[in-house]
Amino acid sequence: MRSNEVKHRTSAEEIQKLKLITAIKTPYLPDGRFDLEAYDALMHMQIINGAEGVVVGGTTGEGHLMSWDEHIMLIGHTVNCFGGQIKVIGNTGSNSTREAIHASEQGFAVGMHAALHINPYYGKTSLDGLVSHFEAILQMGPTIIYNVPSRTGQDIPPSVIHKIAQSPNMAGVKECMGNKRIQDYTMKNIVVWSGNDDECHDARWHHNAAGVISVTSNLVPGLMARLMRSKQTPLADKLLPLMKWLFLEPNPIGLNTALAQLGVVRPVFRLPYVPFPLARRNEFVEIVNQLGRENFVGQKGVQVLDDDDFIYLSRY
Amino acid sequence: MRSNEVKHRTSAEEIQKLKLITAIKTPYLPDGRFDLEAYDALMHMQIINGAEGVVVGGTTGEGHLMSWDEHIMLIGHTVNCFGGQIKVIGNTGSNSTREAIHASEQGFAVGMHAALHINPYYGKTSLDGLVSHFEAILQMGPTIIYNVPSRTGQDIPPSVIHKIAQSPNMAGVKECMGNKRIQDYTMKNIVVWSGNDDECHDARWHHNAAGVISVTSNLVPGLMARLMRSKQTPLADKLLPLMKWLFLEPNPIGLNTALAQLGVVRPVFRLPYVPFPLARRNEFVEIVNQLGRENFVGQKGVQVLDDDDFIYLSRY
Amino acid sequence: MRSNEVKHRTSAEEIQKLKLITAIKTPYLPDGRFDLEAYDALMHMQIINGAEGVVVGGTTGEGHLMSWDEHIMLIGHTVNCFGGQIKVIGNTGSNSTREAIHASEQGFAVGMHAALHINPYYGKTSLDGLVSHFEAILQMGPTIIYNVPSRTGQDIPPSVIHKIAQSPNMAGVKECMGNKRIQDYTMKNIVVWSGNDDECHDARWHHNAAGVISVTSNLVPGLMARLMRSKQTPLADKLLPLMKWLFLEPNPIGLNTALAQLGVVRPVFRLPYVPFPLARRNEFVEIVNQLGRENFVGQKGVQVLDDDDFIYLSRY
Amino acid sequence: MRSNEVKHRTSAEEIQKLKLITAIKTPYLPDGRFDLEAYDALMHMQIINGAEGVVVGGTTGEGHLMSWDEHIMLIGHTVNCFGGQIKVIGNTGSNSTREAIHASEQGFAVGMHAALHINPYYGKTSLDGLVSHFEAILQMGPTIIYNVPSRTGQDIPPSVIHKIAQSPNMAGVKECMGNKRIQDYTMKNIVVWSGNDDECHDARWHHNAAGVISVTSNLVPGLMARLMRSKQTPLADKLLPLMKWLFLEPNPIGLNTALAQLGVVRPVFRLPYVPFPLARRNEFVEIVNQLGRENFVGQKGVQVLDDDDFIYLSRY
Repeated sequence: MRSNEVKHRTSAEEIQKLKLITAIKTPYLPDGRFDLEAYDALMHMQIINGAEGVVVGGTTGEGHLMSWDEHIMLIGHTVNCFGGQIKVIGNTGSNSTREAIHASEQGFAVGMHAALHINPYYGKTSLDGLVSHFEAILQMGPTIIYNVPSRTGQDIPPSVIHKIAQSPNMAGVKECMGNKRIQDYTMKNIVVWSGNDDECHDARWHHNAAGVISVTSNLVPGLMARLMRSKQTPLADKLLPLMKWLFLEPNPIGLNTALAQLGVVRPVFRLPYVPFPLARRNEFVEIVNQLGRENFVGQKGVQVLDDDDFIYLSRY
Repeated sequence: MRSNEVKHRTSAEEIQKLKLITAIKTPYLPDGRFDLEAYDALMHMQIINGAEGVVVGGTTGEGHLMSWDEHIMLIGHTVNCFGGQIKVIGNTGSNSTREAIHASEQGFAVGMHAALHINPYYGKTSLDGLVSHFEAILQMGPTIIYNVPSRTGQDIPPSVIHKIAQSPNMAGVKECMGNKRIQDYTMKNIVVWSGNDDECHDARWHHNAAGVISVTSNLVPGLMARLMRSKQTPLADKLLPLMKWLFLEPNPIGLNTALAQLGVVRPVFRLPYVPFPLARRNEFVEIVNQLGRENFVGQKGVQVLDDDDFIYLSRY
Repeated sequence: MRSNEVKHRTSAEEIQKLKLITAIKTPYLPDGRFDLEAYDALMHMQIINGAEGVVVGGTTGEGHLMSWDEHIMLIGHTVNCFGGQIKVIGNTGSNSTREAIHASEQGFAVGMHAALHINPYYGKTSLDGLVSHFEAILQMGPTIIYNVPSRTGQDIPPSVIHKIAQSPNMAGVKECMGNKRIQDYTMKNIVVWSGNDDECHDARWHHNAAGVISVTSNLVPGLMARLMRSKQTPLADKLLPLMKWLFLEPNPIGLNTALAQLGVVRPVFRLPYVPFPLARRNEFVEIVNQLGRENFVGQKGVQVLDDDDFIYLSRY
Repeated sequence: MRSNEVKHRTSAEEIQKLKLITAIKTPYLPDGRFDLEAYDALMHMQIINGAEGVVVGGTTGEGHLMSWDEHIMLIGHTVNCFGGQIKVIGNTGSNSTREAIHASEQGFAVGMHAALHINPYYGKTSLDGLVSHFEAILQMGPTIIYNVPSRTGQDIPPSVIHKIAQSPNMAGVKECMGNKRIQDYTMKNIVVWSGNDDECHDARWHHNAAGVISVTSNLVPGLMARLMRSKQTPLADKLLPLMKWLFLEPNPIGLNTALAQLGVVRPVFRLPYVPFPLARRNEFVEIVNQLGRENFVGQKGVQVLDDDDFIYLSRY
């Protein structure tokens, strides 16, 4: 008899069908613990507006600011409360192969449907090292490989992807190197999600991407779902100013600021993140008004927060 | 909106109805990690044979030999795979109030139905300190308080139980101080589970205990379920030799030895536990034959293991 | 070439010469972190008043309320600041053999001179298990074995001590079972420190104990040093009321209360510890006045603290 | 009274005088634990050959593959064994401000003389966030800021350095952006160490760098010390092939391979690092022969290791 969890594990194929995956924000209480009420509410909004998957504790969800026990707990919590309604993809990647293996084992044990794995950022390694790292973690369960050289300092070249693509657990790639790279992969039947919101409509409809792993969908899940379900060029254009605003500083600074101003999360920042300055916060209200408040998550009116409204945490 | 998990939380009343709760064994792989396949199989046997709850990572499950992240992972895993069929009670107790609070928060977040809490063993504290400790953890969710002075070095006196019994989260007491103490509690409408297998039949049928939190039921869940569902004096007597054997050394030494000889778990011991010596291992086979192999978990023939069959782990 | 640290390691013989070893209190800041200034001041008072060793993170120092990284850090800090003036004995014991090994390796690596090891409390084990546990940790470096059944729930019987006494790293036993047991050991050339302050004068001068591992010496290190250097029957009698007061509740409740009232540490308690009630706090001032304020650590006048002066921490 | 450790803390000025600082390799045992004997031997070779400081657990020392308790232990161990002979700079940086603060507090508590701090790699943040991060950690003690955009994905611009340069704890910058940037800083009296071995001779003698934080000095500490003490243009040129070889793949892949072939460390790799392929391993022997075996650390003959000689660890 195999472990119950292993027997009922989601297949890579089921993961490959997901079009809109939200890299979900992690909200905090003023003492720095997770605000699970706000989190559950945000998860609920994602589900009813059409997101089919979430990445828990991604860079957007600030997994790198969590202890591993917090991280696995959040994955387990998400599976427990929402696992029947949405696919839960745990970001159990690390620049340490040991940590990546350990976290993935734990994440699958608590029921996550797939893992997201980054190449070893900061420490980096050789191409042979990359292959060894990915081969070790691909034994665990369905996996999406994440390539974002602007964060990691090292591109995962196609040669590495092709080598590991044979694994039955390889669900696909979250690719940030642009639609040319995406096209090259999809022509070879490698499943790809765009990692750039501003390019994702083209990626999906002109370059055969399966969909997007999105930051913007935290804010406008319904619009992003429409973008991924049918060609929506005017809508894609209309969303560009929001997307541009969101990435004026390293993500999730913009997203954190936006969700706080929408009243969906408390204005609590774990350092080293700090909110956008006042001028940018004013711009966000205009963007919301142009796109329509009703398209954004939350029920409260959008507001401009004062500098004093924000709480910064360096110990938690 | 409250957190989804909080909204759907099991009530203390639902916990109070459980008659047979197994303090489930944690099986290991030869490298010291959890053997989740063996664990899931054992869980399955508990469910089909009538156990209504499990304590995960109790003293029987060697929670004190786990890191907290392993411990919470195992709770989350159990909820994820079996939470619809059996109540999952996480042993999130600690002699450190901070650890007990943190583990309980995490355990409830990943979906455990109730917590088991010990008084601060080894470090001990004053009666005022006991009350402060329990009041802190009773805010988290449904809770069973565990009194076992032979392990903790300190009795939780009735005065403390009565003080904390007002909490709506107080489900009851797992009591090892004997049936006189149990009777005193049940006469005052405090729910009690016996913590002594050899006294549990009397506790239930003569002293109004709700049931038992049992070690023996790991081995013979069906028989223990019968014992808790209707008066079975001859069966209780018949089980006594097994129970006596199990507790010849501090639990779970006997249980670990027994499950290994039944072929249900690998003969892997995390130190400081070591198996029963050969003479005792021979006795177990006789006990199984007398009670009937078919009443025990597992499908393989019972065997006497050699000294060399056991693996001892001090690093894992 | 051996590791530098191993080459220069203190021998068990050097440890055996220590007469007064203080089980040092760990003071806290209001946010729960260690108050290293207060700690260093208290360490300094121990050294100038004649203590020859300290146990860092013992039950008195609330090692069971520390994370392991805090615990090892405090050992390293003590070695770094005071290791040339006093022997640093790290309480790297645990009821988990793995933790005990890991902590001992780390403690010796950061320079502790000896380890203190408890038998597996709460979880307990068989006599064979005890021997396996101690044999595993005795490979690390000079070690004192600690026997305190009122905390652990299990006596370490002489048979176990005799078995492990052959190890060259076995420095001796901290024994709380009374002077009869101590005498039996010293007659067989096993070095013993009394673990009971109220019996330590007799232990040393009538039963050949090497000295004492003391709680009381936190408060009156000079008097305790005199007690251990020459027969001082009247002084021993004079100290009895203080010792009795200190142990009216489980240690370190009394010590924590006393040091706060002497102005030597902040009145900060990590739960589950809470201070003595007001009536007891009044008694302490009388005891100080009778023994003479000048015999106690600290420079400030002794005061009776109000209930509101105390800070209780359940998250830190 | 201040904490002893704080009172005797090294000043930023003392750190600024160091010319040769080695980013020391961490050697491993076959089971993945630190090989402290090999480490102590390598430390000893650094000291007798003229290194004045070491960075413990830097990227070269694979701090990102350590648990924090291992990391702090290694700092404490180094202070304990060598702190009187060499300055110990702990790499207590992190992309999480919380972790960076906590590790720095612990590192200073166990006696490190200075901290090395990276900007938040991978997670990144805004310039305001960078300043907040560095201001938080600069309160702890003497600090070197480390800028290596090829690893972090984000340059620390001069505007940020100038803002934090006012802190009395700011010892200087380890700069990898080239000698033009170094010159700009030194002209404004900001102390800089080159982070590029191949440029460090020019940095020191033409651009006023204080010295180098070096990888190469693990192998040839004496030659690197000469390079930093007086102008040695021919020697600098002679060392270039070694330096080029070392950085053919992300550091410390080359260094790990080299030290194993010199017989100074065991050929044990924590993944994701793997050794150089055979062709490169052959090249190293030639380089050693050209520079002279006697200039390299260790006493054994240099050898070419086989593929089978290497041990790869993904669990430890």
